[in-house]
Amino acid sequence: MHDKHISSAFDRDLEALQALIMKMGGLVEASIQQAVRAFLDRDLDLAEQVRTTDRRIDALEHEVNEEAATVIAKRNPMATDLRTVLAVMKIANNLERCGDYTKNLAKRTTALAHMQPVAEAAPAIRRMSRDIEAMLKDALDAFAQRDAELAGQVIERDEDVDQMYNAVFRELLTHMMEDPRNITAGMHLHFIAKNMERMGDHVTSIAEQVVYLVTGEMPEERRPKSDDTSFVEGNEVV
Amino acid sequence: MHDKHISSAFDRDLEALQALIMKMGGLVEASIQQAVRAFLDRDLDLAEQVRTTDRRIDALEHEVNEEAATVIAKRNPMATDLRTVLAVMKIANNLERCGDYTKNLAKRTTALAHMQPVAEAAPAIRRMSRDIEAMLKDALDAFAQRDAELAGQVIERDEDVDQMYNAVFRELLTHMMEDPRNITAGMHLHFIAKNMERMGDHVTSIAEQVVYLVTGEMPEERRPKSDDTSFVEGNEVV
Repeated sequence: MHDKHISSAFDRDLEALQALIMKMGGLVEASIQQAVRAFLDRDLDLAEQVRTTDRRIDALEHEVNEEAATVIAKRNPMATDLRTVLAVMKIANNLERCGDYTKNLAKRTTALAHMQPVAEAAPAIRRMSRDIEAMLKDALDAFAQRDAELAGQVIERDEDVDQMYNAVFRELLTHMMEDPRNITAGMHLHFIAKNMERMGDHVTSIAEQVVYLVTGEMPEERRPKSDDTSFVEGNEVV
Repeated sequence: MHDKHISSAFDRDLEALQALIMKMGGLVEASIQQAVRAFLDRDLDLAEQVRTTDRRIDALEHEVNEEAATVIAKRNPMATDLRTVLAVMKIANNLERCGDYTKNLAKRTTALAHMQPVAEAAPAIRRMSRDIEAMLKDALDAFAQRDAELAGQVIERDEDVDQMYNAVFRELLTHMMEDPRNITAGMHLHFIAKNMERMGDHVTSIAEQVVYLVTGEMPEERRPKSDDTSFVEGNEVV
């Protein structure tokens, strides 16, 4: 039962796992683009496609988990090799969560189609999504190339996403206060922005896993904490 | 290097891992209670304690991950044993996420202390938290006793939490529309309710892991989807 750990066999297994991650990552990128385009264009058919993509992402995560368990059982990888397989599982989980958030964006797009648009929020959401797409692309490249420096840059860029979210939060509050008819739409837009910000956190987690893989250490004081909207004081929008 | 898989040694390791999970679970339960009491009583000192508890939860998750990796490397567990270790890691991750949500509740409690209370939200938040605590307790018991039936009940009860959340969402919208001075507090309360709902999802994930551990299959069609607030139509509160 115990295969000896044959380096080339393990490496082949690992390459197969990594290929699955890259495939998942590509789908998540596509899914973000679809979901944001559907949101901006109020395109309900495209929003529907996001759900289909999300099911494929879920299926791939399942496949990664099964394959990873098989690799561990068959090859009994030690130290770095084991760490790599476990990191791959975590990355798959982070990607799957990103897929969930894009699906949620698609759902809210369907709801928002019936409401008057809060136009000011759209450019901010678009900007956030572009940043997140770019971060995800770099995080996946960093993973493929074991590039801790690039991964480190991704982690730092999460700050920008957080700041954009905080700006959107304040902006939406203003619109809601100005006109109560904006409240329902404002709440949905707010969740969309929050989910973007959370996607940024998951991409950051992927980058952290890459740093851990390369250096054997988690980046110090895991990512700077994100959401400072709980520090909006009083009932004023600061 | 290759220890043979000695059943009793593996079992001892597994028990140690499970003890860590139960310890984490206990801390998360305490943390939910602290955070909700701090929120209800506007007790900022207690809110501060939640952060301390969260750091201990984070440290325990790290310990679980390290221990689990060591067990896998040392014992090369197969099939069910490996599945158990991987499930333990996932459960630790779910517990850690619950800890994050209680920390967020504590943060928002600090923010809300400066605002006029939206009294109607408090009982609903309290009810949600009680349900989640009870679900968590049962999920941990189900894990300790490998009780798939109890775990199945936990999964079903997540529906109630989701429904409570949807009710809170609608109630807060009403208050925000009635009086714009409620908007900022309403947004925070809304996030608190949403985070409770997400905690319910994580507890459900724990229960799903238990089902998977006992039966070898994930419960069919992973949990019914939670948040139907994206189906509030138009600008009316239905």
